[in-house]
Amino acid sequence: MKIDIIGNGNVGVHLERAFSNLHEVKLINSRTLEGLRDGSELYIISVSDNAISEVAASIFHAVEKGAIIVHTSGTMPLDLLSEYGSNIGVIYPLQTFSKNVELDYSEIPFFIESSSRNVNAVLRSALKGVCGNVLELDSNQRCELHIASVLSCNFVNHLWSLANEYLDDKGIDFKLLYPLIKETCRKLNRLSPFDSQTGPAVRHDSKTINKHKDKLKDNKDLSMIYSLLSDSIENKHTIV
Amino acid sequence: MKIDIIGNGNVGVHLERAFSNLHEVKLINSRTLEGLRDGSELYIISVSDNAISEVAASIFHAVEKGAIIVHTSGTMPLDLLSEYGSNIGVIYPLQTFSKNVELDYSEIPFFIESSSRNVNAVLRSALKGVCGNVLELDSNQRCELHIASVLSCNFVNHLWSLANEYLDDKGIDFKLLYPLIKETCRKLNRLSPFDSQTGPAVRHDSKTINKHKDKLKDNKDLSMIYSLLSDSIENKHTIV
Repeated sequence: MKIDIIGNGNVGVHLERAFSNLHEVKLINSRTLEGLRDGSELYIISVSDNAISEVAASIFHAVEKGAIIVHTSGTMPLDLLSEYGSNIGVIYPLQTFSKNVELDYSEIPFFIESSSRNVNAVLRSALKGVCGNVLELDSNQRCELHIASVLSCNFVNHLWSLANEYLDDKGIDFKLLYPLIKETCRKLNRLSPFDSQTGPAVRHDSKTINKHKDKLKDNKDLSMIYSLLSDSIENKHTIV
Repeated sequence: MKIDIIGNGNVGVHLERAFSNLHEVKLINSRTLEGLRDGSELYIISVSDNAISEVAASIFHAVEKGAIIVHTSGTMPLDLLSEYGSNIGVIYPLQTFSKNVELDYSEIPFFIESSSRNVNAVLRSALKGVCGNVLELDSNQRCELHIASVLSCNFVNHLWSLANEYLDDKGIDFKLLYPLIKETCRKLNRLSPFDSQTGPAVRHDSKTINKHKDKLKDNKDLSMIYSLLSDSIENKHTIV
């Protein structure tokens, strides 16, 4: 299949790699649109949510009638593309993509949404052999899944980044935490995260929590995050 | 070595398992102290931080002169035990312990602090062959490491728990996020968490952030956490 991917950010670059074994793929710069091809069956717009409409408007007149235009956003609805043709869809790969980090695409679930059975069949055909599960999700549920992925990946990674910065400042090696982080993740295979919860807040260990708050009092960002998340844990895990 | 572990919570139970291959260990209920032994060389108090002093006071007169008393707290200082003898120390295993989840103790770093060279030698001898690295850390730095571990493990796990609860409520399977969570963790081996950051906040993607906030507006806990962590990411990652 002839596929144009518009947008060479983290997602676009990885989609090109994922598709390139099985399809004739071209990666297009979303600002210049240089090299956009006429006869492609599928145009994948992979740009930040703020820019999807603009890119769709720019390519709409250039693509042949019958070609399919999709975006890759977790949060933007299928409807966003509805003024740019009737053959529209969404391909949302649920993963954290960094250009320099290789991935095994066969482990990644892709969520699709389609304006018609025909579009659905083409998207499934494009994805066959490229990724892990292909699952259908409507725009509303895709947004909910995206919110959960922000909590589970982006915010989690940011907490590690804050911990890294804090320990660097104290002259302690962040890598000392790796076995802990690895086990925190591995435990998900054994227990629900609710049942896995450990630490001072789940024990309602006020002495420790107060000492931590005191040590963080000159760091506004960490103080607020520490208090809010400790309170949330204490509220969800009332004393037995 | 004859070792009594006082406290059969998550940490105490795991320490008993870790030590039992090489030492003569007994696990003691911290409330009854039933079965506390006279001639042990090492007494490990493994109870919540609020209760350490009380347990130390209770066992102090029962143990033989020369025996070593340690606690396992990340946050409480060595000094906490100073009124209970001169042979005191801390053994802080940096891991998340749940009774029902088995661990490979050889991967876990243990941080020790000692009131004397002699105590240090005994603690090192007790830990030899039991765990991974044995490292020295003073009370102040141990508390800083503990704070970072709360951010990196306890808060991270709680975010997963909140995501799980949110998706359950929407009828979406939380397990769909496992490949994402696994990769989020695996990326730490390739990039610093700062360089790994992905998601709407690091892109300053206001359209998506606002849509997520709107969808979360009836969930006070998630709304506050979403806003605070998104703001923190945006502040740390200014636009290039």
